[in-house]
Amino acid sequence: MDGDTKTMTFLQEVVDILMAYIVESFDRETKVIDFHYPNELLQMNNWELQDEPATLDDILISCRATLKYAIKTAHPRYFNQLSTGLDMVGLAADWLTSTANTNMFTYEVAPVFVLLEYVSLKKMREIIGWQDGRGDGIFSPGGAISNMYAMLLARFKMFPEVKEKGMSSVPRLVAFTSEHSHFSIKKGAAALGIGTESVICIKVDESGKMIPADLERRIVEAKQKGFVPFFVSATAGTTVYGAFDPLIAISDVCKKYNVWMHVDGAWGGSLLMSRRHRWKLDGVDRANSVTWNPHKMMSVPLQCSALLVREEGLMQNCNQMHACYLFQQDKHYDLSYDTGDKALQCGRHVDIFKLWLMWRAKGTIGFEAQIDKCLELSEYLYNKIKDREGYEMVFDGKVCPHLTFTPHADNSSAARISPHYSFCTSCLAQVAPVIKARMMEYGTTMVSYQPQGDKVNFFRMVISNPAATFEDIDFLIEEIERLGQDL
Amino acid sequence: MDGDTKTMTFLQEVVDILMAYIVESFDRETKVIDFHYPNELLQMNNWELQDEPATLDDILISCRATLKYAIKTAHPRYFNQLSTGLDMVGLAADWLTSTANTNMFTYEVAPVFVLLEYVSLKKMREIIGWQDGRGDGIFSPGGAISNMYAMLLARFKMFPEVKEKGMSSVPRLVAFTSEHSHFSIKKGAAALGIGTESVICIKVDESGKMIPADLERRIVEAKQKGFVPFFVSATAGTTVYGAFDPLIAISDVCKKYNVWMHVDGAWGGSLLMSRRHRWKLDGVDRANSVTWNPHKMMSVPLQCSALLVREEGLMQNCNQMHACYLFQQDKHYDLSYDTGDKALQCGRHVDIFKLWLMWRAKGTIGFEAQIDKCLELSEYLYNKIKDREGYEMVFDGKVCPHLTFTPHADNSSAARISPHYSFCTSCLAQVAPVIKARMMEYGTTMVSYQPQGDKVNFFRMVISNPAATFEDIDFLIEEIERLGQDL
Repeated sequence: MDGDTKTMTFLQEVVDILMAYIVESFDRETKVIDFHYPNELLQMNNWELQDEPATLDDILISCRATLKYAIKTAHPRYFNQLSTGLDMVGLAADWLTSTANTNMFTYEVAPVFVLLEYVSLKKMREIIGWQDGRGDGIFSPGGAISNMYAMLLARFKMFPEVKEKGMSSVPRLVAFTSEHSHFSIKKGAAALGIGTESVICIKVDESGKMIPADLERRIVEAKQKGFVPFFVSATAGTTVYGAFDPLIAISDVCKKYNVWMHVDGAWGGSLLMSRRHRWKLDGVDRANSVTWNPHKMMSVPLQCSALLVREEGLMQNCNQMHACYLFQQDKHYDLSYDTGDKALQCGRHVDIFKLWLMWRAKGTIGFEAQIDKCLELSEYLYNKIKDREGYEMVFDGKVCPHLTFTPHADNSSAARISPHYSFCTSCLAQVAPVIKARMMEYGTTMVSYQPQGDKVNFFRMVISNPAATFEDIDFLIEEIERLGQDL
Repeated sequence: MDGDTKTMTFLQEVVDILMAYIVESFDRETKVIDFHYPNELLQMNNWELQDEPATLDDILISCRATLKYAIKTAHPRYFNQLSTGLDMVGLAADWLTSTANTNMFTYEVAPVFVLLEYVSLKKMREIIGWQDGRGDGIFSPGGAISNMYAMLLARFKMFPEVKEKGMSSVPRLVAFTSEHSHFSIKKGAAALGIGTESVICIKVDESGKMIPADLERRIVEAKQKGFVPFFVSATAGTTVYGAFDPLIAISDVCKKYNVWMHVDGAWGGSLLMSRRHRWKLDGVDRANSVTWNPHKMMSVPLQCSALLVREEGLMQNCNQMHACYLFQQDKHYDLSYDTGDKALQCGRHVDIFKLWLMWRAKGTIGFEAQIDKCLELSEYLYNKIKDREGYEMVFDGKVCPHLTFTPHADNSSAARISPHYSFCTSCLAQVAPVIKARMMEYGTTMVSYQPQGDKVNFFRMVISNPAATFEDIDFLIEEIERLGQDL
């Protein structure tokens, strides 16, 4: 049919554009970003929505323009986020997912994807160390939501009446997490009606790990005030330092005071795939719930975040509302595969196929090798800058494939970004932002920066991009020095 | 490079598989579904995850197997959900989105997509009728989450201290929605610590519309008990009947008692695109927030759900946590484009490009024509079965492109599904499930059924698939009669 041929030709033309973009993204000679300020970018194309249709040729032009100004997140020199890189099998799987265009709520409309989610969650629970992979779980739209699920489950487990009667029926609940934990713990507490003031931040040691003794002290203190400790979120791979909280010691405290133990392994959970590095999460099997985002260190395309739960049936009891138009109890197949009623969402995007197909293609050992390589590159960077003139490690650890470093983070001394120039303390905070702005304007590389506590702006170098090599690490350091030379 | 060539060849092979699947999906000679029971499907392929990698050929086989057992949601005879069909421009946009593989939280990593979200939300607010398209909004992972955002905002607007201090700092809050509203309102209330018992269900009239007088009565009653009414969710297009609550009358009540008015237009919001049908949402411009899912009647690929908010800045104040590693205040560009801190999520999938590119391709008038056609098909079906022997309309309305009908839903009388056989009342409830099971086994079509209140199982026929024609409607009725003939 003519219509069909035209449609397929159009789709193939888009594919050709995408393939050219992919090839370009992996090419070190191209820019990571062709940066323009928002107002400028708004002018550079006609982005407005119109009453009249455009031609298919116009649509192809729009596709090209969109990609021209996009960030090449697959570029071997893109280190800006915890999620970087582009896996071709993962991409193919995502294209298939879009084509299948269905919804995870029932087996009826997503039979294969529901089974693959079942198989994959079970495998992940086995890797966590829960017996026979038993338990529960769900793929959710990101780590923040996975963490919110965990908090919701912990509250429901302790006070199931909260579902019907709300927070006014329960005593004042308090949650605990380290001062370096992800902001989603507080965000979740705000949303769930617990309140951010009921999230107690536990001190970290000099390497960014939660101090279990401080956790215990704060739990006791809370109980003395008549509050009810219900949730501890330990972090496996903190966002800024990449630190791993001591899970065994934390689990002892949780057990002693009968508090739900959650492990936010959104970033570091993937180390469970590596025999060499999984010791950093020793004790994770004692957790009641674990967040683990394969879209970070495992490079699964965005989004792919799992919440794993030790207790079976709890999610269903906590969230189910028995919608009669979706979860009819008189269907002709095994209804335990209609998993939608345990979700907060109604419709749920298919996030599983990317992970499943990549796992199939690499095998567990392929993921392991990929993760080990990230750690190796990180160690290479560590060795390169630890004694380099003009740099200081903000956090002297090598547990995660990310490093934080700065032009001398010691606030009491002058500091230098390159071997050539020195700074007074007050200017130090501006070094990273200026270099970052120049990186974006030149478009050569991208790396993140931030302050933390009393430490002024420093770079956070994250290595999760499977395309990155030792040479790219060298390039990053050279580029920082080149861009900071006149400072 | 060899690696590149191999990769591109693989991707192209996947594309060829996907294109063949698309062509097949639109072909009425193919089955909508090749159904297998869960245990059977688990045996039909090796879905387990292995330690060792598979070859690229194996991966292609896995892709084919996945599609073989998938539901063809694009099939012109797939009427099972509110989201059906597959738009080729939308699909191309989703493939591009996957390839760009980035995150909506900052302008820094998603400059174009952030701008397109800005442009599209503004346009949607203009269509709602808010002056100059002013206001706020976000694309969220589905209507349930959009509705939850609305409830969260309403609570924060009335009691901003709830963010820090939790629900224990506020009086007992109560929300109101019709007894036919979507289950996500209760789910949201449970999650937010409000409790399902604080969601008061307002009566509907015989056509499924909320009765404003009952709403007012229940608000007064709640106030008399010392509760604080904070949120009314009116539904524009209920899930089962497709009814539109009377928004103007509801807005009068909300104004009188100073209660946040939300419109859940997840399904019916798209009628705003049609000059002929938008009167059904008259009064929507008086709402404080509106949920509108372009992934339903506008056939944008899953997921694409917008929450539109009248008040600017509220979302940011409600949800922001100032994460220093993402939302640095010393960046070199206009930070109002870093929209991530107003979200509940941290990472957020790019859902905007599908909608934007489809809008570009169709123009507003293209979406209008598509929606008008759904309504036309629905009217055709209505006329076809309203006087047909053996059928009864459960809800005799034609406002939404979906109809509910049944083999005589009158519980007091015998009923017939086809002109040939009659049933006693007790068997009636089993008619729809049996026919549905047969539909799935034959794979010829799919349509949903459910009970509602005192009405036993009836069919809910939804028309949102742009590929459906008058002949497909005829086919559905013939198929129901064929499959029910021996009952």
